[in-house]
Amino acid sequence: MSCCHDSDADGAFTVDASRITFGRGCLAEVGDRARALGVTRVALFSDPAVAALAVFDTVARSLRDAGIDVVPYTEVRVEPTDESFRQAATFASETGADGYISVGGGSVIDTAKAANLYATHPADLLEYVNAPVGSASPVPGPLKPHIACPTTSGTGSEVTGIAIFDLLSMHAKTGIASPALRPTEALVDPDSTDTLPASVVACSGLDVLSHALESYTARPYSRRTAPARPSQRPMSQGANPWSDLGCFEALRLLGIYLDRAVADASDREAREQVMWAATLAGIAFGNAGVHLPHAMAYAVAGLVREFRPEGYPDAEPLVPHGMSVILNAPAAFRLTAPTDPGRHLAAAAQLGADVRGAAPEDAGTVLADHLVGIMRTVGMPNGLGGVGYTDTDSPALADGAWPQQRLLGNAPIEVDKPLLDSTFRQSMRYW
Amino acid sequence: MSCCHDSDADGAFTVDASRITFGRGCLAEVGDRARALGVTRVALFSDPAVAALAVFDTVARSLRDAGIDVVPYTEVRVEPTDESFRQAATFASETGADGYISVGGGSVIDTAKAANLYATHPADLLEYVNAPVGSASPVPGPLKPHIACPTTSGTGSEVTGIAIFDLLSMHAKTGIASPALRPTEALVDPDSTDTLPASVVACSGLDVLSHALESYTARPYSRRTAPARPSQRPMSQGANPWSDLGCFEALRLLGIYLDRAVADASDREAREQVMWAATLAGIAFGNAGVHLPHAMAYAVAGLVREFRPEGYPDAEPLVPHGMSVILNAPAAFRLTAPTDPGRHLAAAAQLGADVRGAAPEDAGTVLADHLVGIMRTVGMPNGLGGVGYTDTDSPALADGAWPQQRLLGNAPIEVDKPLLDSTFRQSMRYW
Repeated sequence: MSCCHDSDADGAFTVDASRITFGRGCLAEVGDRARALGVTRVALFSDPAVAALAVFDTVARSLRDAGIDVVPYTEVRVEPTDESFRQAATFASETGADGYISVGGGSVIDTAKAANLYATHPADLLEYVNAPVGSASPVPGPLKPHIACPTTSGTGSEVTGIAIFDLLSMHAKTGIASPALRPTEALVDPDSTDTLPASVVACSGLDVLSHALESYTARPYSRRTAPARPSQRPMSQGANPWSDLGCFEALRLLGIYLDRAVADASDREAREQVMWAATLAGIAFGNAGVHLPHAMAYAVAGLVREFRPEGYPDAEPLVPHGMSVILNAPAAFRLTAPTDPGRHLAAAAQLGADVRGAAPEDAGTVLADHLVGIMRTVGMPNGLGGVGYTDTDSPALADGAWPQQRLLGNAPIEVDKPLLDSTFRQSMRYW
Repeated sequence: MSCCHDSDADGAFTVDASRITFGRGCLAEVGDRARALGVTRVALFSDPAVAALAVFDTVARSLRDAGIDVVPYTEVRVEPTDESFRQAATFASETGADGYISVGGGSVIDTAKAANLYATHPADLLEYVNAPVGSASPVPGPLKPHIACPTTSGTGSEVTGIAIFDLLSMHAKTGIASPALRPTEALVDPDSTDTLPASVVACSGLDVLSHALESYTARPYSRRTAPARPSQRPMSQGANPWSDLGCFEALRLLGIYLDRAVADASDREAREQVMWAATLAGIAFGNAGVHLPHAMAYAVAGLVREFRPEGYPDAEPLVPHGMSVILNAPAAFRLTAPTDPGRHLAAAAQLGADVRGAAPEDAGTVLADHLVGIMRTVGMPNGLGGVGYTDTDSPALADGAWPQQRLLGNAPIEVDKPLLDSTFRQSMRYW
């Protein structure tokens, strides 16, 4: 799938973005913006932790001040499941909402997307879910207006058409991907990140960093088979000039600001620039797609046994999403570097690596070593071994990542199970 | 208007873009894309020259092959007027179209925007027109789907919410600016530019170059007064991190490819990259706004007496839009450089100027001299004198530019009539 004859290759790329408002204090615009979209009654999604914060009250008050009926749903599950998506959709149907507001991280925004989808176009849950797990039916029409208000600088969900969940019956993460799911507007307010713990800023920032690196090194769009119908060109269409631009700037900003944003919560400039980088990388990966590190991360998060990270109050064992991604990244980019050494070196340089005198064959090592340096600076564990995995887990991890065919097919190399297995083993320990 | 107390300043910026498909051959996607938008009967806008080209047939055939009723309107006037906008709107109302397709340059795309607006939300023509000429009423709701297919790499109209026309009774160019006018999708196909004459590529390419330079040097969004309602934040909101990114890349591409695209119609890479630069600069200026050179251009085009450019078959005297813009640019940027010498030098460097050792006070000269060099290379006239103006015309030119308050207010300096007058005089002769 990752290769194609020239005559089958796609000759164009298609890019899309939400309307985005960025700036400190902009969450107070939500009421006026919802009213301008013609909304009169909103389903307001959040999770219990965010609903207790001032940011949630700011949004609710702005909506009520604009004369909009607000029906809160603050029970969103972090790491949503098919069951939690269903409950949210049932809630949405019963409220009679004509608009959706989400205030939170990726889990909250994804849940609001799913609730909007199934309340607007009712269907069996698997109908719109990515193949091979679901039927991957196209969404039949537009959804109701949705304004996404991210409170972390990580997932980029506020600007993508992707919603991720755990399918409980298969113990697998999967998702729904359609331009129709993209929120109508995103309100990105760096004030939301001022109170985040350092470990959360580190994990979500490294998720952003990998969004940018993966989209920049993804198989180019011109090496993907053209779709049968152009209007169904996938969002994971591969690297293209539009996504390259956002990735490149996000990498530059992260190279300057990520360690500062982690080290000092009072460094407002750094936290603001990391959130802008998250927005740019979100736009980029929503129009290019991620590949190996994210595909592998699903297995890393899914098979966790005992690991409990600092700064995450949850009682259950958990590898935070960004951590589960970045732990695979040095090994993955060492593997992909020979497909385009120039891109891998350019990415390393944007992140601040010294690439003077580096030969093409050094690209993988240069980028991987620089990533490892960043991981150590912001306090990541030492590879998958640091979150409890050993070499004997690599076959199970490879099995766990294998269903992520949408992502694996977006890698710049052919990936089979033995290659996944060996890449997991290369990810066990970095220093 | 261009200054404000900190407490009144806007704290956020809002950006928007059409769905964009870019690539050789992508015009053949129009039928499938229109059908995916739910369109069954389209008003197909073009002008007599473009309607005679293969590109028009490609679009019409793709639409018909998708089972869509096509009602052509190929009488679009180049440099549209209030009267030609009204005729197009009447046509659109009478066809009962549920979708709009435009194939052509900025005049065609702008006419389709206006026809869609007045057919969907009927009103007196001046109702939605920019103040002070019109009432500047907000567009009351969404328009019908519009797919814009640009055939020049210049105006960027395919990704902006702006439509420009001549108001005959006032002998003035003015326009309508609303996010609602932004086409739903843009299909940007570099094949369309393969047959353009060199002079057209030069003029439209220099329009693009000035879009990028003006948006990059516009008054920053954070120095504009905040709007009374955030949802009415103007599209001409000033320079912001999003527009900066597109401008910077467009300038880099134009520095490499513009002279090649003008010199050699068979240089497909150069023509393709200039069209991509036009798209990026269009997105940028649609979210930041242009300023002095464009405001001045309205007067330069409007007061033309005898000038007839090469490659433009029109019998009437005409200063092509891009030419009318770039003739003011060296003088205008020499004037604005002291407001932010770093930005002006960085822009010059992106265009290929050698800025080593340049001091801040050199910024205006460095950028102006480099622009003059580009103008000479691609065959522009020697300033406003080259299209027939003399110093005695400067008061009339200043009067002609003065109504462009939306643009003048977006400049990084306070502009009054004497300053306009002197800048026109500085634009008369460059070498």
